Amino acid sequence: MTPSAADVARTEPLAAFLARTRARVDEALERYLPRPPACPPLMSEAMRYSVFAGGKRFRPILTLAAADAVARGADAAALPAACAIELIHTYSLIHDDLPAMDNDTLRRGRPTLHVVYGDGIAILAGDGLQAEAFALLAREPDDAALAGRRLRVLQLVAEAAGSIGMVGGQAIDLQAAGQAPGNRVELDAGGLRGMHARKTGALIRASAMSGAVMAGAGEDAVRAADRYAADLGLAFQIVDDILDVEGEAGQLGKTAGKDAAAAKPTYPALFGLDRSRTLAAECIARAHAALEEARLADGWLGAIADWILHRKS
Amino acid sequence: MTPSAADVARTEPLAAFLARTRARVDEALERYLPRPPACPPLMSEAMRYSVFAGGKRFRPILTLAAADAVARGADAAALPAACAIELIHTYSLIHDDLPAMDNDTLRRGRPTLHVVYGDGIAILAGDGLQAEAFALLAREPDDAALAGRRLRVLQLVAEAAGSIGMVGGQAIDLQAAGQAPGNRVELDAGGLRGMHARKTGALIRASAMSGAVMAGAGEDAVRAADRYAADLGLAFQIVDDILDVEGEAGQLGKTAGKDAAAAKPTYPALFGLDRSRTLAAECIARAHAALEEARLADGWLGAIADWILHRKS
Repeated sequence: MTPSAADVARTEPLAAFLARTRARVDEALERYLPRPPACPPLMSEAMRYSVFAGGKRFRPILTLAAADAVARGADAAALPAACAIELIHTYSLIHDDLPAMDNDTLRRGRPTLHVVYGDGIAILAGDGLQAEAFALLAREPDDAALAGRRLRVLQLVAEAAGSIGMVGGQAIDLQAAGQAPGNRVELDAGGLRGMHARKTGALIRASAMSGAVMAGAGEDAVRAADRYAADLGLAFQIVDDILDVEGEAGQLGKTAGKDAAAAKPTYPALFGLDRSRTLAAECIARAHAALEEARLADGWLGAIADWILHRKS
Repeated sequence: MTPSAADVARTEPLAAFLARTRARVDEALERYLPRPPACPPLMSEAMRYSVFAGGKRFRPILTLAAADAVARGADAAALPAACAIELIHTYSLIHDDLPAMDNDTLRRGRPTLHVVYGDGIAILAGDGLQAEAFALLAREPDDAALAGRRLRVLQLVAEAAGSIGMVGGQAIDLQAAGQAPGNRVELDAGGLRGMHARKTGALIRASAMSGAVMAGAGEDAVRAADRYAADLGLAFQIVDDILDVEGEAGQLGKTAGKDAAAAKPTYPALFGLDRSRTLAAECIARAHAALEEARLADGWLGAIADWILHRKS
C-alpha cells in the first residue's frame, strides 16, 4: 500500500507531494480520456493537446488533499472527481482563449488550441472535455455503495461549472470588458469579488468539497472544506492579479500587465499592491482557521494554502 | 391522475399527444432553468432565447414515450432526463450555428443566438446549457431509490453528447466540409452513416434508452429501445436530407439545397432520391420490428416512427 498523503506530510516536502500527485493525476487522465477508434482521431489529439499542456493540476491536487484530510488513504475514491474537475478547468481555458473571448494565442509558452486546430475544433474539443468530465463522474468509481456520493459530487461540479458558477462568471467578465451586448459593466470591489467567486471560486470550492464528499465527510467537514476553498480561491485570484503587475514590471520593465492593457478590473487597480497583499494573507489566515475548526489541518491543505499565497508564478 | 400516454393512445391523435407533451416539456424546462440573481441576467436571457425558440422537442418526446411504453404512467420519473437531453440538443445547435462551424444566421425564422448576443456569449450560453443538463440529471428526480438509474442515464447521456458521440460527429462533419486542419475528408456511404450515427444518432438513442431506464426497463427492453432509436435516428437524418433537396426545389424552384451548396455529403447525393426514400422506409420498418419484439408497440413509439418518416418539415 502506498503511503497516504497525510502519512508522509511531516517528512515529505510540499514540492515532492505536488510532483507525485501531478504524476498520479496525469496517469489517470491518460487512462480516462477516450481514444480512437471510438473517439475520432482529430478530437482525441485536440483534447490531449490541451489536457497535457503542463498545467499545475491545482484543482485535482486540492480534491485529493481534501479527501486525504478527511480520511487518510481515502483519496483513491476521489481520483475520478479530481480528474473530471481538471477536464472542466481545461475546457474552460480552451474556450476562454478563443478570439470571441480573451483572444489568447499563447498559454504556458505553447500556441493555444484554436491557433493550432482552428476555432471550430477548439470549440468542439472544449465541449467534448466537458461531456467527458460528467461521463467520468457517472462511471467511476464503479461502486454502487458510493452512488449517493457520486450524485452529490456530480451536482456540485455541474452547478459550479454552469451559469450560476464558472460560465456565469466568464459572462460577467465579458460584460466588464465591454465584449457583451449592452453597455460595458463597471465592477466595483463587490462586483469584482462576485465575478471571481463565480469564474474561478466556484470550481475551486467544488474541488475541495468533492474530495471531502468522496471520502465520506460529515456535513461539518464538507462545510469547512467549502469555507477553506472559498478563501483559498479568492487568495489565488488576488495573487494572480498581483503577479500580473509584478511579473510584467519586474521582468519586462516597461509595459503594463496584460490585465491593465485589457482594462480588466483587478485587485491592485482597486486597492493598490500593498492592500492586495494584505487581503490575500487574510484569506489564507481564514482558510487555516477553517481547517483547524474542522480538524482537517493534519494533511496537505494547510501547506497548499501557504503555497498559493507565496507562489511566484 | 392524468391519463398516461398509452392509455389515450387509441383515442388521441398523434398531433394532440405531441402538442400536449411539448407543453409539458416547456413548462418543466421553464422550472428547471436557473434564474437571476443566482444566474447572471444576460446568461439567463441568452439561454432562454435558444431553449424557447420553438423547437419540435423530438428528443424529450421520445424519452417520455419510451418511459411510458415500458411502464404506463412512469414517464414522470423520466421528465428531468427528457429536459436535460433537450438542453444538450439546444447547446449543440447554438455551437453548430457559430461562424467557426456552420455559420448559420437564422434558425426557425429567428436570428441565431450569436447574431443577437455575439459569439462570446453564445459560446458561454451553450457551455452553460450543457452544465445545466448534467446538474439537472444529478438533482432530479430527488429519490435515493432511483440513484442507480440516474447514474446510468447520466453516463448514457454524457457519452452520447461527448467525443465518442455528438461532438465527435460534428468534428467529422467539419473535416468533411474542409473546415478542420488537414485535408478535407471524403465520406463514402459508410463514413456518412458513421458521421450521422455520432452527430445525431447517439443522442437520439440516449433519449429513448434514458426513458426506458428511468421507467425501470429490463435489459431486453433497454436494448430494444436502443435498436428502435438507432433506426429512427438514421431515418430522421435521411428524411432531413430528402427535405433539403425537395423543399428547396419545390418551394424555390431554382437554387439547389443548402447541403448541396455547402458540398455536404447527403443520402440523396450518394443514392438518389428514390433509393433514399426506400432506405428511410426500411429503417422505420426495422424500428417497428424492434418494438414488436420487446412488446413496446402499445404506446406512442410506433406512431412517432411513422411521423418521422412522413414529416414534411
